[in-house]
Amino acid sequence: MATKERTTLLLNWYANPYHTPIFAAKALGFYQDAGIKLAILETTDPSDVTEIVGLGNVDFGLKAMIHTIAARARGFGVTSIGTLLDEPPTGLLALKSSRIQTFSDIVGKRIGYVGEFGKRIVDDLASLAGIDPGSYESVRVGMNVVDAIMRNKIDAGIGFINFQQVELETLCGETVLLRLDQLAGLGCCCFCSIQYIVPDAVLERDPELVKSFMQATQRGAAFTTEHPEEAYELLCQAKPQLKSEMYKKIFIRSLPFFSRNLWNVERDWNKVSRYAKHLNILDPGFDIHTVYTNEFVPDAPFSEIEPIACCLS
Amino acid sequence: MATKERTTLLLNWYANPYHTPIFAAKALGFYQDAGIKLAILETTDPSDVTEIVGLGNVDFGLKAMIHTIAARARGFGVTSIGTLLDEPPTGLLALKSSRIQTFSDIVGKRIGYVGEFGKRIVDDLASLAGIDPGSYESVRVGMNVVDAIMRNKIDAGIGFINFQQVELETLCGETVLLRLDQLAGLGCCCFCSIQYIVPDAVLERDPELVKSFMQATQRGAAFTTEHPEEAYELLCQAKPQLKSEMYKKIFIRSLPFFSRNLWNVERDWNKVSRYAKHLNILDPGFDIHTVYTNEFVPDAPFSEIEPIACCLS
Repeated sequence: MATKERTTLLLNWYANPYHTPIFAAKALGFYQDAGIKLAILETTDPSDVTEIVGLGNVDFGLKAMIHTIAARARGFGVTSIGTLLDEPPTGLLALKSSRIQTFSDIVGKRIGYVGEFGKRIVDDLASLAGIDPGSYESVRVGMNVVDAIMRNKIDAGIGFINFQQVELETLCGETVLLRLDQLAGLGCCCFCSIQYIVPDAVLERDPELVKSFMQATQRGAAFTTEHPEEAYELLCQAKPQLKSEMYKKIFIRSLPFFSRNLWNVERDWNKVSRYAKHLNILDPGFDIHTVYTNEFVPDAPFSEIEPIACCLS
Repeated sequence: MATKERTTLLLNWYANPYHTPIFAAKALGFYQDAGIKLAILETTDPSDVTEIVGLGNVDFGLKAMIHTIAARARGFGVTSIGTLLDEPPTGLLALKSSRIQTFSDIVGKRIGYVGEFGKRIVDDLASLAGIDPGSYESVRVGMNVVDAIMRNKIDAGIGFINFQQVELETLCGETVLLRLDQLAGLGCCCFCSIQYIVPDAVLERDPELVKSFMQATQRGAAFTTEHPEEAYELLCQAKPQLKSEMYKKIFIRSLPFFSRNLWNVERDWNKVSRYAKHLNILDPGFDIHTVYTNEFVPDAPFSEIEPIACCLS
């Protein structure tokens, strides 16, 4: 297969352990096998990603499920073609010394939020819990929630159990995490599932590229879950600054949440669609099924081959 | 809730790191919260489990997907109510020194198989690969494949990538694993997915018990994937003989394969059903949907609550 000049993938943040499947696929030549010369780009500000992917400046991007929906609602033509991270548990993160123990303890505190929709969502959560949105201070901190807590700019902020909580615990000591899904009895944090997204222009121009990209990436995901130590070592070879006990721990904590088949989970898209409509991010009549497709997710060609089995007694 | 005298769960093997969700749920009092006084039983011979569960001698059991189907085909009334381990990658395991590099290298070698269906399946795999079943020796070794390789009773045998391969590598040095699903281009090892099963009598007599059991178990699964170090420590408190670097590694290698929602995956059941029919284990007209149910899998009561979101920008 001829190798196209450059294919670009813009990560949702700085390169970190939950991006291992992509780095493993690259290091092992899976993209090259698929005829793809992949350039992996990082962003200093996660809020820039939607626009850059949406305008078609890169071929592929990564973004949370809710952001992908928000991007479409704002008129950017992007589509999710698969999942990197499934339902990473997310919550309101604080140091134990903050004395925040339940959600109602945010009264009088400084609460960090990520970006544009952040305040609306924290306020919605508060009002569901019967808390006056004027009774706490909201502070925009982007993704640097741990740094903002350490600099005493905020008392609590939103973070992943497998990432920011590990960071804060390693750097500062005991933490608490009030699970957002549990606060509302929601049952999952699929909002935060990290998706592979493409601009419409790429989908139209080069569906074969999309298919090849997903096949190579799926090989990387399989390698990561089946050979975790080797995969992490490959990540560290590409990004030596991640070679530390803390990032290793973040990697291990991320293992249960890697999507092994890269599938878009219909039930999760339906949930997040309902929530986006509740927040008035999305029009009531919006059809969520136009935002994602499993057309490019590699599937075993089961019907074409003779099946075999394993581990049978 | 009143605590019933004893509820019994028979593991599919000796207690090991991939059983952590159950031990975590027990140690954290999740079964007690659900009104269940759970006795966790181990088996010295995995081949005994189907019959013991099938005869209703225990309330719950664990068994691989293909065995669950085989149990029904043999007239035992058991039903899968959920999944512990999703698609643990499985293959033909050998030491590098065996010089087995591809499947055709089994000619002239001693190949270990687990139990009853084992030989039939290894032979089917061989015939698919154009190898004469008389050209290698089949040796029944049960689940003790690593021990049989170390004692030089066999040259290769079937094992999990996250279990027996780690064991053999730790105890003996470099290994090879010929992925069974890859040999046939199958795409997954769902055959080996480990299921929670119940005898029909329990389903009829006490569906509330089944529901409570699954709720408590799902809390244990969530705890294990969200707090892996603590969960492993709880396992080791119950089974101190698992407190070693090797078992810790097996635990970490198992993390990507724990089912977080315990869901029975329809696509996998369909695949394994087809394979069981191909092997004449199952009648062609058998309806696979009678073997499993997701009725007792806990689901977030999404429709009853106001949704909230997390990690939004």
